[in-house]
Amino acid sequence: MANLLGRRRWMAEFKTTLAADAAAISEFLQARITCDLHPPLAEAMRYCVVGGKALRGFYVMESARLHGVSGAVEVAAAIECMHAYSLAHDDLPAMDDDDMRRGRPTAHKVWDDATAILAGDALQALAFELIGDTEFPGNTRAALMVSLAKQAGIAGMVGGQAADIAAETAAVPFKLDEIIAMQNGKTGALLTWSCVAGAVMAGANQGPLKAYGDSVGLAFQIADDVLDVEGDEATVGKAVGKDEDAGKATFVSLLGLDGAKRRADELVESACDALSKYGDQAETLKEAARFVVNRTH
Amino acid sequence: MANLLGRRRWMAEFKTTLAADAAAISEFLQARITCDLHPPLAEAMRYCVVGGKALRGFYVMESARLHGVSGAVEVAAAIECMHAYSLAHDDLPAMDDDDMRRGRPTAHKVWDDATAILAGDALQALAFELIGDTEFPGNTRAALMVSLAKQAGIAGMVGGQAADIAAETAAVPFKLDEIIAMQNGKTGALLTWSCVAGAVMAGANQGPLKAYGDSVGLAFQIADDVLDVEGDEATVGKAVGKDEDAGKATFVSLLGLDGAKRRADELVESACDALSKYGDQAETLKEAARFVVNRTH
Repeated sequence: MANLLGRRRWMAEFKTTLAADAAAISEFLQARITCDLHPPLAEAMRYCVVGGKALRGFYVMESARLHGVSGAVEVAAAIECMHAYSLAHDDLPAMDDDDMRRGRPTAHKVWDDATAILAGDALQALAFELIGDTEFPGNTRAALMVSLAKQAGIAGMVGGQAADIAAETAAVPFKLDEIIAMQNGKTGALLTWSCVAGAVMAGANQGPLKAYGDSVGLAFQIADDVLDVEGDEATVGKAVGKDEDAGKATFVSLLGLDGAKRRADELVESACDALSKYGDQAETLKEAARFVVNRTH
Repeated sequence: MANLLGRRRWMAEFKTTLAADAAAISEFLQARITCDLHPPLAEAMRYCVVGGKALRGFYVMESARLHGVSGAVEVAAAIECMHAYSLAHDDLPAMDDDDMRRGRPTAHKVWDDATAILAGDALQALAFELIGDTEFPGNTRAALMVSLAKQAGIAGMVGGQAADIAAETAAVPFKLDEIIAMQNGKTGALLTWSCVAGAVMAGANQGPLKAYGDSVGLAFQIADDVLDVEGDEATVGKAVGKDEDAGKATFVSLLGLDGAKRRADELVESACDALSKYGDQAETLKEAARFVVNRTH
């Protein structure tokens, strides 16, 4: 009973922190993004970076707090820019062709494809600019930027997205290990980077947060597949049921609905176990992992 | 006469150096770019980075040599990745809709729009990764990456491209100062970054190379407008006459053909004057400036 009350308190605290971080990141970016050369480009970029949960930004800020590092909002804003660029491009008609995102029309529907492409391109550059402009020592800034580049690029997010698109037309449906590799690139790479960022800023051991991030990243994607089956479009904020309609292999099609949920829960346990050395200080991160698999959007 | 013979020798040396640098950069990138997650993505990226003059890469390597810095090929490769990504995206049907580039079909014609978008996205990330993986001190790597992000982003290349697209449908044709601002962003920003890179790597004064780069960048774009009028498609390697057909304001439409050529020549003189403190050591860079306005492609 005491434990349950403790959990409720931690979950409430996590949700308060998540919302406060999202607000701080959003406020920072809305003021930061301007464009003299073509103001509508900045407008599209600002549109792309609002309205999300800012889970990646929260991870950057919470892992920084865990190590006593302040001034992480710029780094948190950077990962949200990187994530927002990937969504703006993934939603394009030439890619996933989605009209709705975060409960609003996608950027190419509000403006046009060219604006969505360019806003995404500029958001990727801005991610590196924001980190480079922080006050951290050169080695730290360089380490953050080069790791971000690796996680965002061909061996990470973009490679995963290319594999995901290929999966839709693959003659043989992807097997479980192929889906895990694809999802680790597409979603896991940036999530793990966010979780590790605080340790990089502090010059601390990245091991526990990397193990946590790897587990949470995979659990996140399994939960996404579950939401695609169980969620309704209004709550999720984007189209659902697309994978099933496309006959695409997913964690749900391969593990079954119950099997997928069980696997996600196991991954959450692994994630929490990885943080044992931090003791009570990691309670907010543990709740974040539970939130990731129980979320409705 | 002695001067003319000297100039011929320097021009020959410049062209040899340009070709050798392009070959070294190309060899490096063809070996470096691989993708386990989705091999065709790497193939498209490798396709995008070959076949150009590699003028930006040459500027990185020559400005490094000018300061006695070796090991600049990764940084030169980075700027060529950044340039190649911008071309892959600019050529898309949603943007400039070009079928030919560097005398070959554009990436989206060989593959599809999704592949061209993703190859471009991954090339931008790779540019930062290549710089971050060099052996330069953290402060130097961070300085190179953050300046590259600024020149490539909303206040530089992407902002300039957005303004250029807007110019096509502008109710009132752009005036000269608007075209200069747009071109400084679209083309000048990355060119100047390349010229300055060697000074950044050496920790030297960037002033002379910045002045040189700013002048050459503008001269380059004026020469592009001249080529669009005077060049033929086979030699230039891409469609010509597009701006005139679109009734778009250009340096040629605003200054006249002779006026544009005169302005480009004046800029080349300014560029060469800016390098006076380097004496004979800068002869190759001076020839590069002359080449930029007299090139046929």
